[in-house]
Formats: sequence, C-alpha cells, structure tokens
Amino acid sequence: MRYELFYWPGLQGRGEFVRLALEEGAADYVDVVRDSEGDGGLDRLADFLESGIDAYIPFAPPFLRAGDLLVSQTANILQFLGPRLGLVPADEAARYWANSLQLTVADVVTEAHDAHHPIASELYYEDQQPEAMRRARSFVQERIPRFLNYFERVLVRNPHGPHHMVGDALTYVDLSIFQMLSGLHYAFPKGMTGFARRYPHLADLQTRVADRPRIAAYIESPRRIPFNESGIFRHYPELDCMPAEE
Amino acid sequence: MRYELFYWPGLQGRGEFVRLALEEGAADYVDVVRDSEGDGGLDRLADFLESGIDAYIPFAPPFLRAGDLLVSQTANILQFLGPRLGLVPADEAARYWANSLQLTVADVVTEAHDAHHPIASELYYEDQQPEAMRRARSFVQERIPRFLNYFERVLVRNPHGPHHMVGDALTYVDLSIFQMLSGLHYAFPKGMTGFARRYPHLADLQTRVADRPRIAAYIESPRRIPFNESGIFRHYPELDCMPAEE
Repeated sequence: MRYELFYWPGLQGRGEFVRLALEEGAADYVDVVRDSEGDGGLDRLADFLESGIDAYIPFAPPFLRAGDLLVSQTANILQFLGPRLGLVPADEAARYWANSLQLTVADVVTEAHDAHHPIASELYYEDQQPEAMRRARSFVQERIPRFLNYFERVLVRNPHGPHHMVGDALTYVDLSIFQMLSGLHYAFPKGMTGFARRYPHLADLQTRVADRPRIAAYIESPRRIPFNESGIFRHYPELDCMPAEE
Repeated sequence: MRYELFYWPGLQGRGEFVRLALEEGAADYVDVVRDSEGDGGLDRLADFLESGIDAYIPFAPPFLRAGDLLVSQTANILQFLGPRLGLVPADEAARYWANSLQLTVADVVTEAHDAHHPIASELYYEDQQPEAMRRARSFVQERIPRFLNYFERVLVRNPHGPHHMVGDALTYVDLSIFQMLSGLHYAFPKGMTGFARRYPHLADLQTRVADRPRIAAYIESPRRIPFNESGIFRHYPELDCMPAEE
C-alpha cells in the first residue's frame, strides 16, 4: 500500500507526527505537496478539502489517502497507521490507551499553537503579541509542567518499565512524545530549564527515539523540515520565560 | 456491563457528550460524582486521576470505567462506547470517518471554551475579559461559520442522504453535533442569527435528535444539568456578536 500524505508545505506542523510514524514504520509514502511539481500537490490538496472521496471530506490537513480511504485528524491517522506499521500493540485495551495519550499530546499541540496565537488564527502574531505574552507565560509556568508531570508519571507507572508510553515496545505515542518534546525545547528553551532533572524518564525516551536508526536518518535528511516560525512550535524569545519553580 | 462515568459536578462540559451516548444507548451507567453521597464521588475521581487502574491514568475528566478498563478523552470514550451501544456502523472505514468528525467537534469545543478563556484556564473570566472580547469575535465571525459550513457540507455529501453525519442511521456523532449546536445557541444567540437558513440540514438534524424519545426524556429529566457559566458554553452577553454577513 502506497500512502499519500497531504499537508501544508514549509512547516512541520501536525503533519510531522504522521511523517515520524511513516518513517519509523518504513512505509511506502508520498508527501504529496512537497513531492509534486509546482502547485500540482497544493491543487490536489485543495480538491480533496473541497470534495473528499465519496463521503469522506477532511476539515483540514493533515489527511492521509490510503486507497479508497481518506483519513483525517492527526490522532485518527495515527490510530489508522498504528496496526498497519507495527506501531501499536494488538490488544484493544492498549489501543484505547494509546489513543487517549495521543489525544493528550494533541491538546499540548493546540495549546503550544495558541501560545503565539491566543486571539485568532487568521491574524498575524504581531497583531496579538501582548495577549501572546500573557498566554505563553501561563503555558510555560502552568500547563507545560502539568502535562509533562502527567506523561512522566505514565512512564513511571508503566508495568513494563519506564521505557515506553504504552506496553513494552515502541508505539506511535513514543514518536509523538519525542516530537512534542523537541518542539517545546525549540520554542521555549528557557521554559524547559531543568527538564532532564525534573522529567528524567521523558528525557531518556526523547534521546532513545532520536537515536533510532530510521528516525536519526530521517532527521538528518532533507525530508525533515527544520523548526521555524511558520509552524506550531515557534521560538519567539519574548514569549519564552523561566518555569515557576526555577 | 455497568459503566461508571467520572466528571466534574455542576456543569455539562465534555462529560455531556458521553452522557448523551449513554442515554440514547439505554446503557446501565452511574454518573459517579453526581450519584454519590457527599464528597465520596469526587474522592474516587481524584483517586483515579492520581493512580488510574494499572497503567491507565487519565489526564483529566471525563473518563469512563468499564470493568478493568479506564478510558479517557471524550472522543476516545465515544469510540469505545459506539460499537457497544449500537451508535456507530460496523465497518472500519465508517468508524475512522466518525472519529475524524468527532475530533473536529472536539476542536469546536476547545475553541468555544477559549472564547471566554483565551489566556489561561487557571484565571477567572474577569481577568481575561478584554482578550475574550477579541477572541469571541473571531470565533463567532470566522470560526463558527467555517466549522458549520463544513458540517453542513458533510450532511449534503452523505451518499445516504443528509439525515445523518455518518451512514444511514444515528451515530454518536449526530448526538455530539446536537450538543455542540445547542451549546453554540446558548452561548451565542446573536452569533447564531440566520442559523437555520444558512445551515438547513444541521438545523434539521438538531431538531430530530432533540425529538428522539430517549434524548427528549433525558433533557426533561433532572439528570440534564442546565447550561450555565461554569461550563464550556457560557453565555456572556458582552462576548456575543452578530455574524459577519448578517
């Protein structure tokens, strides 16, 4: 099965969570917009947003075409790919657990976006900078610790040991935690002060995912778009601040 | 199977999407916090948030206990309940489609919350009212039309006709669309001006869900908490405004 991933060009964004799963799973895939000549990929993306396939119309990218199926919403795409790429256990309970963790990562991603766009996604950052200063401070000092404490606790409480978020092997959730942590480090280097000391198992997981051969090769490749200020995780120094307890 | 739903008392919130599915599915369920004496239910909720069941620790309510399983994140709970309560088709493609729609409803819910809390969930509304005025205007004039146009188009494009969001029978997605629309009407009566004219199939769906015997009985019962200003959908007249095109 050749998968077709549709996402905006020029930024990692939510598409990156899907790319990491496709790369780790050694999937046969096309990153349609980036791999097309000229505007051909963007035109196809726009067509699917307008008309979908049969009943299936995505609200927004990323979406994945797999034969006759069009799957949208990042966590839903990962839930679809998980069993197909060997990135989630077979048992139903573990799959619901993985999905709940992925949806919590999605909550972090939304809040990381709103840290620089707290008022309106259709306005520029510069048009909502004072509000962003307030929101980013709350995000760094209240929300990041709350989420990271939770994910650290999930690792500590894993009956199979603190090496994976779900069960005893790599899942797409581990890849997403890696991406979320990488984004938080990029956007909020000050805010992540003390990270490895406060969240040792998360820090270890981030390193182990980065060292996986396929992930390491992907990150070194031109397929990995660098973090930048068009994405979800943006480094605006004026929004970065120290955690409350440092 | 007796289900136990855990959610904060006194507000509909995200728990209401689960309640509607349990009610329509005639499930045997306990609304633990509301049905307990004194603080017993809240204490149990706090215990599960701290310790979970085995590996399964919820980040936040709502969560559902089903025997040995603890399922959290609203869309995940509904995905779990759907097949068990006859509220989703059997085929896999329809289930991914239903889940993607439910996750888009979840995005609306998050944005409806942030319309009154754009800066920080730990601050009072009064401490972020100027920012809320800006965000609510964008929500009403940009985001609500974008989401409702999408959901209306999904109904129009349904090969089985515009009566249901997924396939040819009621699913949990229809119930969630009903709840989302009810909340938007409560919070933004001005903002929803022209709703039935602009989104006739959504308006029809909302009425048909409200008229279903079990839903109608539930809404008349004391089990239905009225909308109020502790919930996700809050009516603050100063945040309500007319849509851009009226």
